This record gives sequence, C-alpha cells and structure tokens, in this order.
Amino acid sequence: MGDIAGEPLRLDWPVRVYWEDTDGGGIVYHSVYLNYFERARTEWLRARGLDQRTLRDTERVQFAVVDMNVRWARPARFDDLLTASAELTERGGASFSFLQRLTRDGEVLCEATVRVAVVDADTLKPRRVPPVVLERIAS
Amino acid sequence: MGDIAGEPLRLDWPVRVYWEDTDGGGIVYHSVYLNYFERARTEWLRARGLDQRTLRDTERVQFAVVDMNVRWARPARFDDLLTASAELTERGGASFSFLQRLTRDGEVLCEATVRVAVVDADTLKPRRVPPVVLERIAS
Amino acid sequence: MGDIAGEPLRLDWPVRVYWEDTDGGGIVYHSVYLNYFERARTEWLRARGLDQRTLRDTERVQFAVVDMNVRWARPARFDDLLTASAELTERGGASFSFLQRLTRDGEVLCEATVRVAVVDADTLKPRRVPPVVLERIAS
Amino acid sequence: MGDIAGEPLRLDWPVRVYWEDTDGGGIVYHSVYLNYFERARTEWLRARGLDQRTLRDTERVQFAVVDMNVRWARPARFDDLLTASAELTERGGASFSFLQRLTRDGEVLCEATVRVAVVDADTLKPRRVPPVVLERIAS
Repeated sequence: MGDIAGEPLRLDWPVRVYWEDTDGGGIVYHSVYLNYFERARTEWLRARGLDQRTLRDTERVQFAVVDMNVRWARPARFDDLLTASAELTERGGASFSFLQRLTRDGEVLCEATVRVAVVDADTLKPRRVPPVVLERIAS
Repeated sequence: MGDIAGEPLRLDWPVRVYWEDTDGGGIVYHSVYLNYFERARTEWLRARGLDQRTLRDTERVQFAVVDMNVRWARPARFDDLLTASAELTERGGASFSFLQRLTRDGEVLCEATVRVAVVDADTLKPRRVPPVVLERIAS
Repeated sequence: MGDIAGEPLRLDWPVRVYWEDTDGGGIVYHSVYLNYFERARTEWLRARGLDQRTLRDTERVQFAVVDMNVRWARPARFDDLLTASAELTERGGASFSFLQRLTRDGEVLCEATVRVAVVDADTLKPRRVPPVVLERIAS
Repeated sequence: MGDIAGEPLRLDWPVRVYWEDTDGGGIVYHSVYLNYFERARTEWLRARGLDQRTLRDTERVQFAVVDMNVRWARPARFDDLLTASAELTERGGASFSFLQRLTRDGEVLCEATVRVAVVDADTLKPRRVPPVVLERIAS
C-alpha cells in the first residue's frame, strides 16, 4: 500500500508514563499498554483527517477492537518517555489491521497486532467501512 | 430521615484490591478510591430499586458527581479486602449527598462527602430529581 | 492434568460492570476485559493457596503477563453481571498458560489465551517457577 | 511566594481526552480528572528539577495526596484538547498545596485544591519535606 495525501502508513506518538499507569509491581500495568496503543491509533486516524466524533455524528459508526495478539517483552516504568506506533498492515471491507509497537529509545517493550472493525454506533453490530473512511485509510 | 421499604440509608459493599488498582508506590492509586465509592453508590441505588440503565432509558436522566471532599488517611494495598460504604446525608430538589468511607477491619482508610446531581442524559444539563427517584431515595 | 487439593483447574469469578469500566461508546472499554481476566487469575491463585503478597515477600517472585491472544466477540455493558473464568492449560518451567473467558448468561463476550511468566520481584527478570508455586498449580 | 530559578509557580499542561478516559455517559469519568491533575503536578515537579524516580532512590521519599476538594463544573468529552494547570498555593514542613484547574478554551471544567504530603518510600509514613525538595519548590 502507498501513502495517501502524503500521510505515511505509520505514525509515532510520544507517551509519558504517569503514576496512574503503574501497578504495585513498580511497572506499567499490562492492560495500560493497550490504552497507549489506542492513543496511537486515534492519532493515526486524526492525521488522516478522520475525526471519530464527527464519524459518530455523521456516519453513525465507531471502531471496535475485535482481535489482538500482544507480546510484552520488557517492562516500562514510571516517568519513562515512550513511543507508541501504529502502522496499517491490512484493510478489508469491514475491518482493518495495525501493527503496533511501544518502544523506549528504540528498544521494543511491547508489540501487538490489532484488528479493528467498524460497528454501527447505535446497534454496535459490524458494518461495512464507510467510503469516507476507506478513502482516507486506503490510499 | 428514616428508611424506605426497609432499606437503611447506609450500604456497605465489599471491595477486593487487585493489581489494576495499585500504583508504583505499592498502594492503591488515589483516584481509584473514587471508583470504589461509586461502586458503593451504584449498589446503594440498586438496593433501593433504582436501576441506572432503566432510568436512562425511561426517564432520560443520569447521575453526575459535582462536588467531593476527600481525605486519604491510610494506604490500601494489593489484595486487601475493604469495605466501601455509602450513606445518604442530604437530599435536595436537584442533587443529593453521601458520606462515604473506605475501611479495612473497621479502620478508616479514606473518607469523602460526595454531592451527586441529576442531569439530562442527552444534554447533560442539571434537572430536577424525577419523582420515581425521589420516592425511592427519600423515604 | 488432574486437580490438586480438590481444586479444579478452572475457576469462575463474578464481575459487575461499573461506570469506571465503560467508555464513551457505551460499552466496556476493551482493555478493561484484561483487568477482569486478571481478577480471575488472582482468585484462581488464591483458591490454590497462592497469596501473591506472601510470594513477593518470601520468594521474591511475582507474575508478569508475557503473551496474550484476545478476541472480543460481543460488547459488555454498564451494570452487566458477568463471569470471568480462568483455566490452567499449560505449565512450563518458567511460565504457565490460561484459557480465559468472559461470559454473560453463558454467552461468550471475550476469550483469551494468556501466558504468565514468573519474574524476580527486584530485577523483573524471568525466573524458574519456585517449587512452592509449582506444587500448587501443577497437581 | 516568588519564583525560583525562573520557574513560575503555575504550570499548564495539555491533555488530550482518549476513549480510555470516557465512561458510558459519553463524558470523561469523574475520577479521571484527578489523573489529569496528577499529570500536571508531575510536570510541575519536573519543571523544577524534581525527578520523582531519583527522589525515591536517593531520598527515600515519595508524594501522597492526603486531601482534595474537587468541583466538577462542566463535562469534558472524547477528543477534547484540555489544559490541566497546577499552581503552588501553600507550603508547610510536611506537605504543600496546589490549586488545580482543568480548562477547555479558557472555560473551567473542573477545579480542585489538593494537599500533597511527603511520605517515606518504605514505610509510607509522613516525613518532613527534604531540603532538596524544599529548595526547589519554595523559592
């Protein structure tokens, strides 16, 4: 796949670890990595002009994570400045997939493949990806 | 105020501390105490027959915390079995107040006064407490 | 594998959905399912006499999630009463694995395979599963 | 109080609202505002050269919120870009206080007074504010 509108298929987003993110083991709680990954996907969508609030109001769609393979390799700690990346790897008619990484100084702390489906904002049932979304992610 | 329908004005709810609740300091993260307090308020409402999902669908109202004074006295730790209490202390036309305590073996770890307002589920603007709610909390 | 000490390899744990667990899409936020799964694993360990606080103090070990495959099938909603299950499926010298399900009235909302490693509480580096742990999970 | 080292007593920190922060009511969950406030305090400390990780390792101290008055005035929503501010208002021998605000385009959404105590990193008991901290916050 190529880029659209000059936007690369991968986006890097800085993440600072605050106390709220850590657990009693002194490290970032494992499910919080998923939150970081979603921040990166949100910013990836935003960089392509896809505003989720607008999509919900006008297209009545939202995104739902349906599948995820996650591998935690090294712990992140309080005050770390990390990079969460989102890279589009597949697109289908009703879902698309990302490869995501959380790194610290280039070292991979966590890696995930994430499949996101488009669902109806009212019924939460799966829907086809609307053209306006397809155009912007599929270039 | 007396009780209604035999329900006392105070409810005690058990809370177990899991890893998700702790921070890198080894203790329950301070804002998580507010979550515990809300669980107790939710159960307090449920004990009086107030189902928030039904209230939203039929009366188009929901509850919003508008004011809180919190004092953290002692840390809670991973695996602690705590009690979160909610006791109605005031009721007005558009809001009501609770005294809440988090205790471990009778020792107070955290105490708060919480004012909750009724808001419109669509506009989120303040509304009068609907009669169905008033009846059940004000007996 | 058989049971040990009469404890089955699978444990079911009730989970109530509170506001803290939901997101603006009106459903339980996807990473919160992982928190529910960890509650079930904690209770599974507790049912086998494995107290994580004691293990940390005496054996200097703790558990870390290293791998997870998650499939979200159906949304959970505010106020749902769910069941989170943890079932031991594999054990190795340095890690063990669970099959976990979140269900509502028997219907599967989310399913995951989770691999948990034993790490040193100070260095967070992988360690062999201590005999005291092995005995209790491996019977 | 004047400034020290050219650092003003107040710091503003940008906060983006992600899905993880919202609840089923469509707005930021009330206890998440406290997390935003702590991010601002962490950055306030950092701006004064106070690294909490170093303080814990060298001085064996950490900070604990002991008291908070919070007033929620208006809801924040998914995707909002907010400003969380922290302004030092009092300092004592064992604690100090902040006035904190969360604003959107200058409009106050939430306001809090927060008292933070210094505690021993091992015992979690109150301690005098160490000279190195006092110097940097009290100029």
